[in-house]
Amino acid sequence: MHHGEMLVLPNAWDAFSARVFEEAGCKAIATTSAGVSWSLGYPDGERVPWEEFLGATRRIARCVSVPLTVDFEGGFSASTEELAERVREVIGAGVSGINLEDSRDHQTHALLPHEIAVQRIAAARAAADRAGVPLVINARTDSYLQSGHPVSFPDVILRCRAYLAAGADCVYPIGLADIHFIRQLTSELRAPVNIIGRPGAPTLAELRAAGVARVSTATGPALLMAGTLLDSIVKLKETGSCEHFASAFTYPRMQQMFAMVA
Amino acid sequence: MHHGEMLVLPNAWDAFSARVFEEAGCKAIATTSAGVSWSLGYPDGERVPWEEFLGATRRIARCVSVPLTVDFEGGFSASTEELAERVREVIGAGVSGINLEDSRDHQTHALLPHEIAVQRIAAARAAADRAGVPLVINARTDSYLQSGHPVSFPDVILRCRAYLAAGADCVYPIGLADIHFIRQLTSELRAPVNIIGRPGAPTLAELRAAGVARVSTATGPALLMAGTLLDSIVKLKETGSCEHFASAFTYPRMQQMFAMVA
Repeated sequence: MHHGEMLVLPNAWDAFSARVFEEAGCKAIATTSAGVSWSLGYPDGERVPWEEFLGATRRIARCVSVPLTVDFEGGFSASTEELAERVREVIGAGVSGINLEDSRDHQTHALLPHEIAVQRIAAARAAADRAGVPLVINARTDSYLQSGHPVSFPDVILRCRAYLAAGADCVYPIGLADIHFIRQLTSELRAPVNIIGRPGAPTLAELRAAGVARVSTATGPALLMAGTLLDSIVKLKETGSCEHFASAFTYPRMQQMFAMVA
Repeated sequence: MHHGEMLVLPNAWDAFSARVFEEAGCKAIATTSAGVSWSLGYPDGERVPWEEFLGATRRIARCVSVPLTVDFEGGFSASTEELAERVREVIGAGVSGINLEDSRDHQTHALLPHEIAVQRIAAARAAADRAGVPLVINARTDSYLQSGHPVSFPDVILRCRAYLAAGADCVYPIGLADIHFIRQLTSELRAPVNIIGRPGAPTLAELRAAGVARVSTATGPALLMAGTLLDSIVKLKETGSCEHFASAFTYPRMQQMFAMVA
C-alpha cells in the first residue's frame, strides 16, 4: 500500500471510530495514541497502563477487516528487549503495522541518540521477523517537535536513512509541513514517507505531487469529535432543540455494522 | 437534581466523550449502552461481556467529577440475585445512578410480567441500600418500543406507579414523544419522568412546561459523532484539504483536561 496510490490513513481511537472509518471506505486504519489515551481516561504520552493499551488495540483489531496500524508511541518499554516483547504483543493483538518514535521524553521530544534509535527499530524488525509477520514499521522522527533544538535538514535525512536501513518501511517526520522540504525528503530518500494531514498542512494533491506515500490525520478526527460534542451541547442549551443530533448514521445501521463481529 | 431545574443529561460512551460533556458544563452525565457497546466493538443489547462493560464504566467514572448514571440495560443478569450483585458492582465502579429496563428481549422489547419487573427494581433498591448508597434508579419502561403490541396509556401509568413504589426515583417511557401524553404522565404520577431528547422530540421548553424532570440524549451524540467522522472522510476525499478538522479543542487543551486524572 505504500508503493501505489498515496495512502490516506484516518486515525481511530476505539472500535466505534474505526468501524465508521472502514464504512467510509478507508482501505487501512491507523490509531492515534492521544485519542486512545483520552478514550481510556489518561493523558497522551505512554500514561495508559500497557495492558489497557493492549486491550484497546485488540478491541479495534477485532472489529475491522482492513489492515490496522497502531500508534505505539515510544514502545512502552525501557530496553530493546522489552520493546521486542511489546512488538510481539501488539502483533498478537492483530495489528499489521506500528509507529515507533525516536524520542522518549513526551515533554521535550529530545531525540534519542542516533545509535539507540536505530537499535530500537532493528529490535522491532527482528521481533516481527521472529513472529513471521511482515509488520509495517513507520519510524517517526520527532526532529521537528523538539523544543528549543532546531535540527538541520541533513541530520533528518541521515536519521531517516538509518531507520530505513535498520528495517523501517516508512519514515514519518511529524511536524514537517513545508512542501519544499517534504519534496526534498522524498526525492533524497526514495522510500515511503508519512506526512501529517491536519489544518495548515499541504493539500493531498500537493503531497501526492511531492512524492508522499502516506498521509495520516493524527489527532484531527478525535479533536473534531470533541469540538462537535461540545458544540452539540451549546446548541442544545441555546436552541432547546435536539434536531441537530440528526446523523447519517441510525441505530439500526450501527447495529448492523457490529452484527458481524458479535 | 430531579426536583429543581429540569436536568438535561448528555449520554457519553467513554472517558473522552464524558470529559468533553463535563467541560461543556453538564451537571451530570449519563451513558448510552449503544455507544458503550459500539465503542467496545459489540452490538448494543447486553452483548458486551460484563467485565468489559464494568471496565468501561470504571474508566468513565474515574474521569468525571459530576455524578454519573449508567445505562445498565436489563441488568446483565438472569435472576434478581444476580441483578443485586451487578448493582453492587456498578456502585463499586463509581456510579451514582442506573437505568433499568423492563424488557429483556432486545429484539421484540416484550415487557417482563408486571410482578417480575417490580421485583427487579426492588432488588436493585435493596442492593443499593445494603451498599449504603442513595443510587438514583431510573426505571425504563419499554412499553412504547414493543413491536406489534400496542400498550394502553393506563397500563403504562400502572407500571410507572408500581416501579416508583418499588424504589425507582424516576421513570423513563422510552419512545414516548407525544407532548400530550407526556404532560398527562407527569401530572398523574407527580414524580420525576425522564424523556428522550432526540430529533423529532419536543423542545426542552415544551418538556419543561410539561413537567418533565429529566431529558437524556440517548444515542444522539454517538450517532452525531459517527456522522461527523464519516463526513470528515468524505470531505477529505472530495476537497483534498484537512482544514475541516479544525476544532475548538486543541491537543494541549485535551491533555490539560486529563492531567488531573493521570
